[in-house]
Amino acid sequence: MDIGLRLEQELEQAVGHAASGDSPPLLARALRHAVFPGGARIRPRLVLAVSNACASKKATAATQNATAATQNATAASQNATAASQNASAAITFASSVELLHCASLVHDDLPCFDNSELRRGKPSVHVAFGERIAVLAGDALIVLGFEWLALRTERVAQLSGILARCVGGPSGICAGQAWECEPTIDIVRYQRAKTGALFAACTMGGAASQGYEPFAWQKLGFAIGEAFQVADDLRDVAGSAEKLGKPVHQDEANHAPNFVSELGFDGAMGHFEELLEAARNAIPDCPGREALAQQIEGVSRSLVTGLQARTAAA
Amino acid sequence: MDIGLRLEQELEQAVGHAASGDSPPLLARALRHAVFPGGARIRPRLVLAVSNACASKKATAATQNATAATQNATAASQNATAASQNASAAITFASSVELLHCASLVHDDLPCFDNSELRRGKPSVHVAFGERIAVLAGDALIVLGFEWLALRTERVAQLSGILARCVGGPSGICAGQAWECEPTIDIVRYQRAKTGALFAACTMGGAASQGYEPFAWQKLGFAIGEAFQVADDLRDVAGSAEKLGKPVHQDEANHAPNFVSELGFDGAMGHFEELLEAARNAIPDCPGREALAQQIEGVSRSLVTGLQARTAAA
Repeated sequence: MDIGLRLEQELEQAVGHAASGDSPPLLARALRHAVFPGGARIRPRLVLAVSNACASKKATAATQNATAATQNATAASQNATAASQNASAAITFASSVELLHCASLVHDDLPCFDNSELRRGKPSVHVAFGERIAVLAGDALIVLGFEWLALRTERVAQLSGILARCVGGPSGICAGQAWECEPTIDIVRYQRAKTGALFAACTMGGAASQGYEPFAWQKLGFAIGEAFQVADDLRDVAGSAEKLGKPVHQDEANHAPNFVSELGFDGAMGHFEELLEAARNAIPDCPGREALAQQIEGVSRSLVTGLQARTAAA
Repeated sequence: MDIGLRLEQELEQAVGHAASGDSPPLLARALRHAVFPGGARIRPRLVLAVSNACASKKATAATQNATAATQNATAASQNATAASQNASAAITFASSVELLHCASLVHDDLPCFDNSELRRGKPSVHVAFGERIAVLAGDALIVLGFEWLALRTERVAQLSGILARCVGGPSGICAGQAWECEPTIDIVRYQRAKTGALFAACTMGGAASQGYEPFAWQKLGFAIGEAFQVADDLRDVAGSAEKLGKPVHQDEANHAPNFVSELGFDGAMGHFEELLEAARNAIPDCPGREALAQQIEGVSRSLVTGLQARTAAA
């Protein structure tokens, strides 16, 4: 099955669990509104890409074992079961990451933060359902992210720990947003917590779902996260609201610290290239290393390609 | 060690984890402000009371085994280790429940909900730190509740599942608050989700931490939760802000559905008595059943005793 479709199905099941018939109707609709239709689902796709890169040798071995099944049927069957459990843990973790990402968008858009009226081309949750339901929908999505791990994986402690570390305090998404409330901002710590941490969750959780030691994969996540933050800042300056499905020029309007105001447009673009190189070098040894490197570079570049042309034409 | 002190130590460790030196300072202070000093810590104490009631026979057996240690040192040691792990799971779960309760108070007090300026005798979090930090502190406390379970217990999947079920959608605290946003309210479902669910988490999690089947303990939690909701409604009408550490007459001001407006003061008091009786009858078989029944009744009655006197004097 197409991996994008599989992911949507898993998210559909998760949201269906929280927004079942027992739920207050407005909250149920708000949860659905916050998660569907999705954006590019970049974070959960990164979880699955890392999981696949870690799994490819094992999968090959499982297939070879299966071929030699007449000799060693039990071992082959065990390998196949383990491979299937690992793949299932990866898709569950990918969904949980996306649920937490959606929660952060709902709360970020609130009047007291960015006061954003548009998200993924639709009214943001507080515009569509009111501020109270938006606060509660964000809360319920956070809970659901952890509940889904508890209900669906064998590696709950490890995967919950990784997710919590990357979304809570002292250095996850909540902390990242909270740096914006400080009189002086440590820009590196701010960007790393606000954006990098969830990308680190993706690489660490993807690797952990295949039984790899997760911390070796943290650096890669931070590099990709920073590259995406630079891309996001570039798009905020040079992108179009129509294409992005959200307002542009928000960093300037909200006086939010960003790479373009720090380095200029060309400087930010140069930094973006450096980060892609750093990401490539940060991929730990694994069977699908080269394919993963190409995938990360391809997705990252697609975010800024249009922007380069636009700048050249200006 | 005194159980109240042990609980405060565990909460101190949990909050210290999320509010460590890496944290944005305001968020760290807000997390501490939201959790300390606590109220009566009724919910985590209920977790521990249920856990103790379930454990008492096992603990006696462990002690007897220890006495017969010359014959069966290994078994005695294993029992002692298991008893210690169970007690540790109970205190961790108790802390997680309290963190989630504190998170719900921080978000409930926000301007878009109750717009409450006072909580536990201090300015509420949004008054002290601003609305943005209050939203983030609530979010971070939710995450911390699940993180603490992941970091500290062997029963993560079961305990996380119980906690999530009782705080998220479709029928946990988030759902309870969301019923207030509906044009028509199902009062039973509303009260059960808003208050009952977290009490059910307490009884279920306390029992589960001792290896008991948790769902047999759900009914008890709902009965206690409803009794506390009635007591809360009575105190809102007849209590004093000074004694409660929060504003009174809020249900009337916010047009919130409540038992006193539905049943009258005496009717609500009668319903409270019925619920205490229902709670007593709902306690499943366990070694410390009678002591638990007395404990629940004692704590519950202490909430409304002053109110009865006040009514009689009026």
